[in-house]
Amino acid sequence: MKIAILGGTGEQGFGLALRFAKNHEVIIGSRKKERAEDAAEKVKSILKERGIDANVRGLENKDAAKEGDIVILSLPYEYTLSTIKDLKEHLDGKIVVSIGVPLATAIGDKPTRPLPPPQGSVAEMVQEKLKNSKVVSAFQNVCCRALEDLDNPVDCDILVCGDDEEAKKVVMELAEEIEGVRAIDCGELEMSRIIEQITPLLIKLNIKYKLKGTGIRITGF
Amino acid sequence: MKIAILGGTGEQGFGLALRFAKNHEVIIGSRKKERAEDAAEKVKSILKERGIDANVRGLENKDAAKEGDIVILSLPYEYTLSTIKDLKEHLDGKIVVSIGVPLATAIGDKPTRPLPPPQGSVAEMVQEKLKNSKVVSAFQNVCCRALEDLDNPVDCDILVCGDDEEAKKVVMELAEEIEGVRAIDCGELEMSRIIEQITPLLIKLNIKYKLKGTGIRITGF
Repeated sequence: MKIAILGGTGEQGFGLALRFAKNHEVIIGSRKKERAEDAAEKVKSILKERGIDANVRGLENKDAAKEGDIVILSLPYEYTLSTIKDLKEHLDGKIVVSIGVPLATAIGDKPTRPLPPPQGSVAEMVQEKLKNSKVVSAFQNVCCRALEDLDNPVDCDILVCGDDEEAKKVVMELAEEIEGVRAIDCGELEMSRIIEQITPLLIKLNIKYKLKGTGIRITGF
Repeated sequence: MKIAILGGTGEQGFGLALRFAKNHEVIIGSRKKERAEDAAEKVKSILKERGIDANVRGLENKDAAKEGDIVILSLPYEYTLSTIKDLKEHLDGKIVVSIGVPLATAIGDKPTRPLPPPQGSVAEMVQEKLKNSKVVSAFQNVCCRALEDLDNPVDCDILVCGDDEEAKKVVMELAEEIEGVRAIDCGELEMSRIIEQITPLLIKLNIKYKLKGTGIRITGF
């Protein structure tokens, strides 16, 4: 599976690239090709140290979107719409994974406060713009530092939601390739309104207790 | 400590009464005194079977509010303001615990959808009305069935927030008297906006997977 990660030079996208490049061809996208290439080289060298010969490339976001079978949007909230607005034709029919979180930092306020878009969630905002894509929401609550720490399993459930059952299943299977992760189907895309808001709470706890990266587990299953 | 639980005949309040009556004097409040007395008798008889001679009484909400050192509001979202509006003088200076969740059932919609009040959260709505009380938000995410199951520890973190540090500490200690519970200080009262919204997600999972009661744990501590 060819996985494109737009904004893959950012922390969250980079962590996912590291985890997914073990089993998949990964294309890191960025506004600038050189930055994407640098990040791709970094992924390759980290995995090489672990004896893995990863297939990772860096491209401009647009070209990455064209190439990917699955396209992960690892974009700052405030640049999400402007980044995807010209990519619609390249994303039609594809699984698009929204990992964005509506942090109030978009308007200069704290990262511990959510600022949901008029659509209710980043995932629904993306779906509104990309009408013909299968938008799946996932990976908001997993800490980038946990993703980058390849020596340890990730102690976090990945809450997944979306309106296309098949697409959701593909993303859940992908998530569970990450050691330690349990993917939980949380239903329709609108559940992302709640899932996305858990992240500013985790950021609050990280700051308050000087923790490297909190996550969540659902109990009672 | 005298703990009054307004609306203590409801599932969540009843579960808390059961757990707290082991160590504290508990006053169950209800709109009707007889219903409160019935619930108090039930708590006493359940604990008696376990060899505990509990000090539990039932009173009308107003009288319960007068008597309690700590007052827990276990009220349906849509009746919260109308219930507390005449109780202000009895709650001045006291710790008031908001356990309410803004479910969209208040307007006939689903329990899997949050419908936050204009103040942002139920806890802030309560604090706005009870200006001189020390409002602490807690116990939203713990399942009533888990609370009622005295034979097993509760597998859930209790996320606590509030603007009065001392009051928050008292509630956290109270929460941790429940076997299995870890209380986590999540900061200011406004964090309740996020904490309260986690409950409709848990309700969604309970319904979708036919589970008795999901909860959450924060990882990475």
